[in-house]
Amino acid sequence: MNHFLNWKERAGSQAAKFYKTTLWQGEQMMIGLNCLEPNHRQDTHAHQGADKFYFVLEGRGSFIVGSEERDADEGSLVFAPAGVPHGVVNNSTARLSLLVAIAPPPKK
Amino acid sequence: MNHFLNWKERAGSQAAKFYKTTLWQGEQMMIGLNCLEPNHRQDTHAHQGADKFYFVLEGRGSFIVGSEERDADEGSLVFAPAGVPHGVVNNSTARLSLLVAIAPPPKK
Repeated sequence: MNHFLNWKERAGSQAAKFYKTTLWQGEQMMIGLNCLEPNHRQDTHAHQGADKFYFVLEGRGSFIVGSEERDADEGSLVFAPAGVPHGVVNNSTARLSLLVAIAPPPKK
Repeated sequence: MNHFLNWKERAGSQAAKFYKTTLWQGEQMMIGLNCLEPNHRQDTHAHQGADKFYFVLEGRGSFIVGSEERDADEGSLVFAPAGVPHGVVNNSTARLSLLVAIAPPPKK
């Protein structure tokens, strides 16, 4: 197994909907990459029983977690505890790339 | 609860041993920040039953995971599945800062 990768090797883009890919999945945690072009959004949703965070790799977006709504840019962490609704929209003019980790991983 | 922070607000340094702090802890996952000055190391160790990854925020280090040993720099992910020994040394001349996530969180 290869234990190393750089997220830039795995970045991607789609016109209609944000791009997402799994970078690694273990028994206890899933790590993914989400790339949102301007105006792309991830609708507000919740993961029952699973903690999640976003880490902003590049760009800027407007995040909702629970009753908090805030812009966050490169270097920011956004925590969504189990069961708390969260979502994001890229309201900027450049790509927004997010590292995402969810534990335990979503059922397939 | 505040769901947002930027890792740069929480970076730190110690002379004798690498600096570590918890950024967030939930029921399912812990997120931490490790800052290693040149020559600082985290000895090889394993988390039984917990998946972990490092994400390189700045700098460069030499990582071991299982039988793989490799340098990794900014933007790199290093995955340590549950039970697999892993460690890192900062063999560069600048600070190495790492985002770390462990799921489930270590027992206190």
